[in-house]
Amino acid sequence: MSLLAIGTLAYDTVETVQEKREDQLGGSAVYFAVAAAPFARPRLVGVVGKDFERGDIARLESCGIDCAGVEVAEGATFRWGGRYEADWNTRVTTFTHLNVFESFDPKVPEHYRDSAFVFLANAHPEVQLKALLQVERPTFTLADTMNLWIDVARPALDELLRHVDGLILNDEEARMLTGERNLIRAAQQVLGLGPRYVILKKGEHGAFLMGGDAHFSLPAYPVTDVVDPTGAGDSFAGGFMGYLAERGSVAPDSLRAAMLYGTVTASFCVQGFSIEDLSRRGRRDVEERASDLKSIVTL
Amino acid sequence: MSLLAIGTLAYDTVETVQEKREDQLGGSAVYFAVAAAPFARPRLVGVVGKDFERGDIARLESCGIDCAGVEVAEGATFRWGGRYEADWNTRVTTFTHLNVFESFDPKVPEHYRDSAFVFLANAHPEVQLKALLQVERPTFTLADTMNLWIDVARPALDELLRHVDGLILNDEEARMLTGERNLIRAAQQVLGLGPRYVILKKGEHGAFLMGGDAHFSLPAYPVTDVVDPTGAGDSFAGGFMGYLAERGSVAPDSLRAAMLYGTVTASFCVQGFSIEDLSRRGRRDVEERASDLKSIVTL
Repeated sequence: MSLLAIGTLAYDTVETVQEKREDQLGGSAVYFAVAAAPFARPRLVGVVGKDFERGDIARLESCGIDCAGVEVAEGATFRWGGRYEADWNTRVTTFTHLNVFESFDPKVPEHYRDSAFVFLANAHPEVQLKALLQVERPTFTLADTMNLWIDVARPALDELLRHVDGLILNDEEARMLTGERNLIRAAQQVLGLGPRYVILKKGEHGAFLMGGDAHFSLPAYPVTDVVDPTGAGDSFAGGFMGYLAERGSVAPDSLRAAMLYGTVTASFCVQGFSIEDLSRRGRRDVEERASDLKSIVTL
Repeated sequence: MSLLAIGTLAYDTVETVQEKREDQLGGSAVYFAVAAAPFARPRLVGVVGKDFERGDIARLESCGIDCAGVEVAEGATFRWGGRYEADWNTRVTTFTHLNVFESFDPKVPEHYRDSAFVFLANAHPEVQLKALLQVERPTFTLADTMNLWIDVARPALDELLRHVDGLILNDEEARMLTGERNLIRAAQQVLGLGPRYVILKKGEHGAFLMGGDAHFSLPAYPVTDVVDPTGAGDSFAGGFMGYLAERGSVAPDSLRAAMLYGTVTASFCVQGFSIEDLSRRGRRDVEERASDLKSIVTL
């Protein structure tokens, strides 16, 4: 079934203990779509500036992504800079230049409006909702968010949560959204805000999904050489939603398998800068690693 | 098959954000044995002072623990004090009074020397080895250790590691022992030091086991009301070793199931102070929760 992603296309400057890379292709919708591409043909809605390289659009299209919804606006492309400490868990944002994304007014093209699976990448919840309301009758909608919106746009976020099927967030965001330290209780409280499902990401410690009819927990894939964790969460969402769209089901066993595929795609993402590793992975690589991970978690 | 535990019996003073409890029954061998009791009849070797309550020995025996190897020495029982911060992850040791444990010279009673499964709870590695060498031909030996011994008794610890089948340690200890931040690589390096298996505990994030023929990872059981995490690691080891002793096997599928039982017993432990919750749990409770956890991790 069809899959739509709405979010950022960006140029990131990432610094790790080993290396610094400037202006490399990134953005939530980019990571999501590249991760979902082995499963589905993701439709992309976002905005870039005049400086966005044509070659980068071609690169995304060659991954199997439909870029017809990427608008080119006057101005510069969204830019973000971050630095990771040696433990990978501490990330400092060095700069955020919203540029054309500041006035992003999402326009879902006519031929995208029948999309069945929809991912609302991290953005102001009003923008997310505005995009979602242009989709006719989605089967399953997943939203991401961040601390900033929990802090400054809570009413809009609460409204959004009444319109989506799932919310994906990390441990820190879950605690901030609910005021609960215990992650199980935090997840339970998120469910009280509207979504039928919550996916709680814990980085190197894996992720769990909770909902009325499902509770499933999975450790991360054991990656020994992390290069750059940027985009891991969006890649997780991409593998997760890509698999669901391919299968055309949100039954509990589909959701469990989707968690496995999300975990696997995130593990590829962190093995390279930008989409370097992720974009090289076909369905065969994904299945191979999914099978490895299965053997690690099967009793 | 028979199961032997060598370690501390203690009186702990534990302070959490909610409550403070003084001089409550604790110690590594106590937690281990109580956790193992639903599976096997653990044999206990340790030392207590003249102040150790007879009622506490009776309490352990009523759990099904063989206390014939508990020596009573002149002096006071080992005492430890700790305080947990609100996040549970930060524990401050407020005091350690070794008392009779300072000169602990382990004596494995004659009728314990045929023990098949042996747990060497955290102690000076020379003491652990001395105890182990009194056991005739153990099938499977698991050792615990701590930062202190990695720091001050490394040669003795290295010697011990050449004599045990498995080492159980937490993330921080694994990093300290190997100098590796990445936990997968740290575990691989531990295997290079001698043991056939390493179990790496990550608290609320679960645990994984690694060895030549096995790699198995499991999230923690989702406990919503943590009361006191003291003893969780030893309880994990108790459920793990208890199950192996009951089954009389260390085949890969037994080790996987043992990780499940270790996780479950640890989850009971943290639900109460001391052995309050753990000692109330019979095999039926364990099976019930094991079945819950299975459903949470099964794809």
